[in-house]
Amino acid sequence: MNDVIELACDLINRRSVTPEDAGCQTLMAQLLEPAGFCNETMVFEDTTNLWSRRGTSGPVFCFAGHTDVVPSGPEDAWQTPPFVATQKDGNLHGRGAADMKGSLAAMLVATQRFVQEHPDHKGSIAYLITSDEEGPFINGTTRVIDTLEARNEKITWCVVGEPSSTERVGDVVKNGRRGSLTGDLIVKGIQGHVAYPHLARNPVHCAAPALAELAQAHWDDGNASFPPTSFQISNIQAGTGAGNVIPGTLHVCFNFRFSTEVTDQQLIERVEQILNRHELDFEIKWTFNGQPFLTDSGALVEATQSAILEVTGQPVELSTAGGTSDGRFIAPTGAEVVELGPVNATIHKIDEHVKMDDLRTLTEVYYRLMVHLLT
Amino acid sequence: MNDVIELACDLINRRSVTPEDAGCQTLMAQLLEPAGFCNETMVFEDTTNLWSRRGTSGPVFCFAGHTDVVPSGPEDAWQTPPFVATQKDGNLHGRGAADMKGSLAAMLVATQRFVQEHPDHKGSIAYLITSDEEGPFINGTTRVIDTLEARNEKITWCVVGEPSSTERVGDVVKNGRRGSLTGDLIVKGIQGHVAYPHLARNPVHCAAPALAELAQAHWDDGNASFPPTSFQISNIQAGTGAGNVIPGTLHVCFNFRFSTEVTDQQLIERVEQILNRHELDFEIKWTFNGQPFLTDSGALVEATQSAILEVTGQPVELSTAGGTSDGRFIAPTGAEVVELGPVNATIHKIDEHVKMDDLRTLTEVYYRLMVHLLT
Repeated sequence: MNDVIELACDLINRRSVTPEDAGCQTLMAQLLEPAGFCNETMVFEDTTNLWSRRGTSGPVFCFAGHTDVVPSGPEDAWQTPPFVATQKDGNLHGRGAADMKGSLAAMLVATQRFVQEHPDHKGSIAYLITSDEEGPFINGTTRVIDTLEARNEKITWCVVGEPSSTERVGDVVKNGRRGSLTGDLIVKGIQGHVAYPHLARNPVHCAAPALAELAQAHWDDGNASFPPTSFQISNIQAGTGAGNVIPGTLHVCFNFRFSTEVTDQQLIERVEQILNRHELDFEIKWTFNGQPFLTDSGALVEATQSAILEVTGQPVELSTAGGTSDGRFIAPTGAEVVELGPVNATIHKIDEHVKMDDLRTLTEVYYRLMVHLLT
Repeated sequence: MNDVIELACDLINRRSVTPEDAGCQTLMAQLLEPAGFCNETMVFEDTTNLWSRRGTSGPVFCFAGHTDVVPSGPEDAWQTPPFVATQKDGNLHGRGAADMKGSLAAMLVATQRFVQEHPDHKGSIAYLITSDEEGPFINGTTRVIDTLEARNEKITWCVVGEPSSTERVGDVVKNGRRGSLTGDLIVKGIQGHVAYPHLARNPVHCAAPALAELAQAHWDDGNASFPPTSFQISNIQAGTGAGNVIPGTLHVCFNFRFSTEVTDQQLIERVEQILNRHELDFEIKWTFNGQPFLTDSGALVEATQSAILEVTGQPVELSTAGGTSDGRFIAPTGAEVVELGPVNATIHKIDEHVKMDDLRTLTEVYYRLMVHLLT
């Protein structure tokens, strides 16, 4: 059985900046194989994915995660080299320590112990690991899921190792995520000289009342599991830089994070109604980033709550707040999905780190989860 | 007496891209000196200016203009080389042909003829020429005017040679210009992740209703000489480029072209009232580009109308429309100011050109103007 900290270090030391895997999945497969797993590497374009399974029957308990990390930013801004795992004051430092190589190490050690102690467990244990979670997420989890669906291979329960915790490990579990929908809007006007406004049509002027209405609109009330749907303009641009030119076009990029109370189609219709009512000459490109999903009850949520309470003595908050994750690709297959991982305070930042004790706790929680579901 | 076309060619062949003068003013001074003018070159920073005067008594009739031109843009996009004056199908081609080296040549030839025929004319004739009209207009006309004001040297009547005409030379004379006021607005919000809107404040959302109100506001009705005051947003920008980040600040640049019915201070107050009423956290930097000016009657306007009618047989339209010109720096001294020059259809464009006959007509008009005012 490996040590969770040593294994996390082994993974952090591999410079797997998205979409690179840098041998992380090979290391994982080498540990899973002697534990009775059958490994299947699926390479799609620039992305390496691992589907590994122990057992052939259901139910299927799956750990999901990613070996890729976001870039380090300026390395000399770090207190310790980002791709050299460093233990310091009880913390483990390095890019990916919290997001999510620490989780991967905890899954593996928990699995080693579980299969050693329960070699004849119920159902199957599986791993769905990608190197394209931090990137465009085109050739990662979604394509592995497509492959599994095509051969009717189903996941019953899925634990995504994303850093869900806020203060201490296990204080927050994500049992769903809002949907995400992006709009790229171009409002067309007629360029001209500010001294001759009658010869031009200013798209910023045309669009301003519509943008004001979109910003103030009430989309829904949310529900017990989801906050109200939120609309945010992320980028807006018009103008040549010159102060005496009326711009010809206005570009606006916005994003919805939406609850299960609306659908992406309803949001698209409402936005286009508003734009049309203001008689804008516009083009819009919609990018659908994922439906909202929710696992509000069931064996996985119950087992997760029990496992955390047993290990930490503390209750769990179920939440659907925060960004998207690959859970959005897994939940639509009918799987129950939760996200459970370490504290996310330093993810994507300089000096990313995780408490080493939290990784030990997380290992224990993952282990207890398997005991609850597979014995 | 020089030929107006040859002289215009001499000037066009000098590559005087703003703020370069490239010897144009030296050429002008060399022609004015034997006609009895006293030349005074005033160099301020990167700008060359010429103040040249014949006579010491009033009234002072002044030709104003500039030797600098805007850049040519890609030279191979031109049918003829932009800095090689080329005669073609009755037109004179080259950068500055219309704006405004053709006018400078016409002024000089008209002046040569006038002083030859009327060596004992009334008052004085003057030239106020700069090489910084197309640039930031900091070290050009405004500083020459400051110098003249400091020694109490006044201009009575000023003809600016800007290309005022639209279809045929003399069809439109500008007898005033709107004021120009620019605002650089920064609306401050709080940057954040689109998934956590409660932790951020989106400055685009905050500002949209205020921008809508500014775009729809009615500032004044204009008057007989001025169209209504116009507000135009020229540039707007917010966002990091990333689709999941709520921007921290919004930049908006806008411009007023305003009539004599409002003052710059009134506009500033109204804008700031609107921004404050919408409770925006903002900073604004105002740049005042010039008061509106108007020469609605008087000897200069009458002489201009008469001279054009005599030479072309056509009436004149007085207009205050269009962009700013250096007239805004001269009018506040109390001078009567008109702008009269060739057709402006190709100014600042590829293949700038002017009809050679129009330059001959313009020479005759400038000559008649001096006859009306100084004999």
